[in-house]
Amino acid sequence: NNAQGEDIVAGIRTPKPLEWLEHEQPEVYAQLVTLFRKLENHYRDVQDVEFTVENGRLWILQCRTAKRTPRAAVRIACDMVREEMIAPAEAVMRVSPEAVGVLLHKSIDPEEKYEPAAKGIAASPGAAMGEIVLSSSRAVELASSGRHVILVRQQTSADDVAGMASAEGFLTATGGMTSHAAVVARGMGKPCVVGCAALHIDAAAKRITLGERTLTEGDVITINGTTGEVIVGKVKMVDAELTGELKTVLGWADKFRRLGVRANADTPADAQLARSFGAVGIGLCRTEHMFFGPDRIGTMQEMILAEDESGRRRALAKLLPMQRADFLGIFRAMDGFPVTIRTLDPPLHEFLPKDQSGLEALAERLGITVQRVQQTITRLKEENPMLGFRGCRLGIAHPEITEMQARAIFEAACQAKTEGIKVMPEVMIPLVSTPQELRHQREVVVRTASQVFERTGAKVSYLVGTMIEVPRAALVADEVAEFADFFSFGTNDLTQMTFGFSRDDAGKFLHLYQSTGIVERNPFETLDIDGVGQLIRMTVKLARRKKPGLKIGICGEHGGDPASVEFCHQTGLDYVSCSPFRVPVARLAAAQAAIRDEQSQQRRSEQRKRRTVPKVQSGGGEQ
Amino acid sequence: NNAQGEDIVAGIRTPKPLEWLEHEQPEVYAQLVTLFRKLENHYRDVQDVEFTVENGRLWILQCRTAKRTPRAAVRIACDMVREEMIAPAEAVMRVSPEAVGVLLHKSIDPEEKYEPAAKGIAASPGAAMGEIVLSSSRAVELASSGRHVILVRQQTSADDVAGMASAEGFLTATGGMTSHAAVVARGMGKPCVVGCAALHIDAAAKRITLGERTLTEGDVITINGTTGEVIVGKVKMVDAELTGELKTVLGWADKFRRLGVRANADTPADAQLARSFGAVGIGLCRTEHMFFGPDRIGTMQEMILAEDESGRRRALAKLLPMQRADFLGIFRAMDGFPVTIRTLDPPLHEFLPKDQSGLEALAERLGITVQRVQQTITRLKEENPMLGFRGCRLGIAHPEITEMQARAIFEAACQAKTEGIKVMPEVMIPLVSTPQELRHQREVVVRTASQVFERTGAKVSYLVGTMIEVPRAALVADEVAEFADFFSFGTNDLTQMTFGFSRDDAGKFLHLYQSTGIVERNPFETLDIDGVGQLIRMTVKLARRKKPGLKIGICGEHGGDPASVEFCHQTGLDYVSCSPFRVPVARLAAAQAAIRDEQSQQRRSEQRKRRTVPKVQSGGGEQ
Repeated sequence: NNAQGEDIVAGIRTPKPLEWLEHEQPEVYAQLVTLFRKLENHYRDVQDVEFTVENGRLWILQCRTAKRTPRAAVRIACDMVREEMIAPAEAVMRVSPEAVGVLLHKSIDPEEKYEPAAKGIAASPGAAMGEIVLSSSRAVELASSGRHVILVRQQTSADDVAGMASAEGFLTATGGMTSHAAVVARGMGKPCVVGCAALHIDAAAKRITLGERTLTEGDVITINGTTGEVIVGKVKMVDAELTGELKTVLGWADKFRRLGVRANADTPADAQLARSFGAVGIGLCRTEHMFFGPDRIGTMQEMILAEDESGRRRALAKLLPMQRADFLGIFRAMDGFPVTIRTLDPPLHEFLPKDQSGLEALAERLGITVQRVQQTITRLKEENPMLGFRGCRLGIAHPEITEMQARAIFEAACQAKTEGIKVMPEVMIPLVSTPQELRHQREVVVRTASQVFERTGAKVSYLVGTMIEVPRAALVADEVAEFADFFSFGTNDLTQMTFGFSRDDAGKFLHLYQSTGIVERNPFETLDIDGVGQLIRMTVKLARRKKPGLKIGICGEHGGDPASVEFCHQTGLDYVSCSPFRVPVARLAAAQAAIRDEQSQQRRSEQRKRRTVPKVQSGGGEQ
Repeated sequence: NNAQGEDIVAGIRTPKPLEWLEHEQPEVYAQLVTLFRKLENHYRDVQDVEFTVENGRLWILQCRTAKRTPRAAVRIACDMVREEMIAPAEAVMRVSPEAVGVLLHKSIDPEEKYEPAAKGIAASPGAAMGEIVLSSSRAVELASSGRHVILVRQQTSADDVAGMASAEGFLTATGGMTSHAAVVARGMGKPCVVGCAALHIDAAAKRITLGERTLTEGDVITINGTTGEVIVGKVKMVDAELTGELKTVLGWADKFRRLGVRANADTPADAQLARSFGAVGIGLCRTEHMFFGPDRIGTMQEMILAEDESGRRRALAKLLPMQRADFLGIFRAMDGFPVTIRTLDPPLHEFLPKDQSGLEALAERLGITVQRVQQTITRLKEENPMLGFRGCRLGIAHPEITEMQARAIFEAACQAKTEGIKVMPEVMIPLVSTPQELRHQREVVVRTASQVFERTGAKVSYLVGTMIEVPRAALVADEVAEFADFFSFGTNDLTQMTFGFSRDDAGKFLHLYQSTGIVERNPFETLDIDGVGQLIRMTVKLARRKKPGLKIGICGEHGGDPASVEFCHQTGLDYVSCSPFRVPVARLAAAQAAIRDEQSQQRRSEQRKRRTVPKVQSGGGEQ
């Protein structure tokens, strides 16, 4: 009878179930239920109550707001609004955005007991299970016959996208939160574990070792992208759900938020998904993903290997109808909402084969020498592709590429308009570091739009803007704004260049940096407010001073991170854009930021009122 | 008799030599000589005078300051001071810093006529001629038997440094102004042409094609690093000279400049050279260059391949005496001057072999499996090494490396002190992006220094500072300053990250950017004042607000560029540091910046005086 609460926490006593009390001491039980109601009404939240019963007398030891599962949190918040215990704003504040993120993915049953064989970085939430496959082609092959596979790779690249689309989830030995595998996984909403140091792949022998376990292709594993765990065999899962109650809470959230929430989506299917999650536009449509399809990569390669501009134009002419169809599909899916389309961004060598056999096949297909293909690959090879010949640098060196893309956009837009669709295309130029680059590319886009409008007789209104993803663009944002209808922060690249961290390579030290407190949080997950955030604030200030109404958004991975969303709200951005699966998270985070903002403004204004008690006029003085 | 000057420029009339006039019309000639004297006295400079003689009467058509060769400019400036026509300050202003740069390199005789076979980027001034060699080992071999060679490569890397040291100059097919070849060439003061697109190398056949010419290893070429021209065969050269008159002008310059001029030097020989060119310290000593020597690279590799910290420490213990000897040599050469030593900077994979045979030899030498070497290489491989595991990130992951380097520095410093040498070591931590990184490395250095002082009983004063080369460090410069005794701008990397331009890859588009006016000047040659310069100004302001006396310099390539030196003067930096051969250029540029500054201050103060004529007191009014 002293410190009984601690006894239970320490495991000295084992508590009895409430049913026992109800049965054995019904009066005490009734007393307890009344008290529970009272406490919940007082605290307006579910309570953990510690109590003890001594000689038929009830003693309350402690009482605090209860911990709850994500699902319970949403249900309780809804219940309490229904019971008019709390207002919708408070319900919105009570659900953590991360809980929403968890609810949208399949997860391992919390009741399940298992021993992970290895642990990596939890790169994309949710759990997935399937047979191990070590190559993308094998993933496509097995998935097409209805089998579930987990793609296991040293790391993934653009070549793997088809295989990734077929797999349930991905596991890589290297890479960090923003490695290719991680970014694609979050985009696809698939579970992913990266940087799993205990994983060794012997591709030739079709074997992997996971810590001490050796497995072969075909063995089943489960990955938990929420925790980074890798489990040998199957475990029990629970399904993802966007329940009615979650929808209710998000509906309330939408009434409070000031930030728009868009999605990063590259296909009509993604766009559809984004809308179902409540996105009010597409903030980033990456056109290059459209070039990796098996029916297109060949034409793209033909373009890259062309001897001159006219050769490039011939290949581009073949790509035009494909791009136009892509855009038309997206415009249809996003009827009434803006769609931001980014012109070609990655370095061209990403589209060329990496192995000798691919190289030979390409040479044969195009009827040119292997040597010529090899020369082009050598010429395009880069020491630091991230800082190389990519983004608007491509479109400036080869304006015909931007031209083809603009033509596809505006032809699709005109077509959509004739179908009665409300199209709002926004053309976004990547990797701008000087105002002159944007001016150059803007001219190409505007000229092409006029030509299309003239030819088709239709006309759609559109915007031309730029990514702010290079530190220099932020430093001269006022000059860049002169040629922009909108800005969108590409915070992935901006973080890379501001820190000098390659997101593909930072895994080598970022772990250590976090564990030793050199960086508080991974800056690729949560926006670095002191450094990168300073550039963002500077940009907003400089740009809006020049163009007060300039629309400014963010389309990096941070657009789906709650703390970063709060920063975006405070900095006066117009919208955030994130992967479709993060849209509900961002909606809630944006609402919470707005509510907190409102609350602190109220507090400040109350403080001001208290301070500014009207002074009693003193008599006399000047007259 | 109308517009005769234009006739000559247009090539319609051919003028007669002055001797003809002296002989035919002696009175007119005498009249002309008197007039020449008068004009030169009036303009206080050598004049180009256009005149015509019509019917025995002299007509002066035009008169302007004469164009002159660099050598003549220096001579004339000295003459005029001697004749008391101009003051030393004016003489300093009359010699262009670039002229000084040209004077310090061998060049092609201006009288020589030749047809270049190809043209590339003029990456390091001066001309050189020699036999074509296609590998560094061949360069070393031929040079050791006294032959002159030009190293011709697709591009160079750290492996080529020995070959480069043996060659007269370098020619590369790819790369830009700040590619490895270009930077090393300027550091060594050797002529270099890079990014020569017309150059194709067939290493297997030991053949190259230069535009339409095919040449084989052993054929002689001449490269002109001042113009970028590549010439087949020999052309006549004129020697470099640091004449007495140039020395005189530079001596005057030193009286005016406020900026210190240091040199980037990695060896005692370079340090000696730097002093002979007037450097007042070393602003950047790159310790990694010391690890590439044939006697050291093996131990470095042993360190990298060690299984654990104790293995690394064993290898580091072998490197310690070598580094100590390096530093001692440099301290001796720089008696009385500060020496800034940068801790290990490049990614570790740069020290590992790149080909299979090198890899096998290494495995055998260390008695480990080829597979283990291969695994380490795979593990260290990076997508974007520039933004990867390098700089202070190495020293934080492996503090024992920083410790060894600090120990070598302080043991050498203590030894030098006992020899009666005045040592002023400054330890510089590279690639800092957060204050915590600098704090970590500073602690290692300070602790090691105390240990050395305790053990040796000697004590030297020293500074610990950091490069500012990552945009984020500039943005949080006040916080970084807290742990720094000095800052040194690494403007090469700062330019790379601020623009998102890899200096190794930007050649693919920078040419086009310059020719189309997207960038006015190559930002790797002349500091980009709007972008990078803004970060520099921001850093100086934030840092000096925190630490008013903080010493701030610059050690990027820009430290030897006259326009950039002027910016450094205006921004209040304490010193610039550049390659030894650029030291005289920087001395002159710094003096000119100071003189211009002084002149404009005088003008402003005169304007103020004129404006602030004392007001006549008006009668009446308040009393």
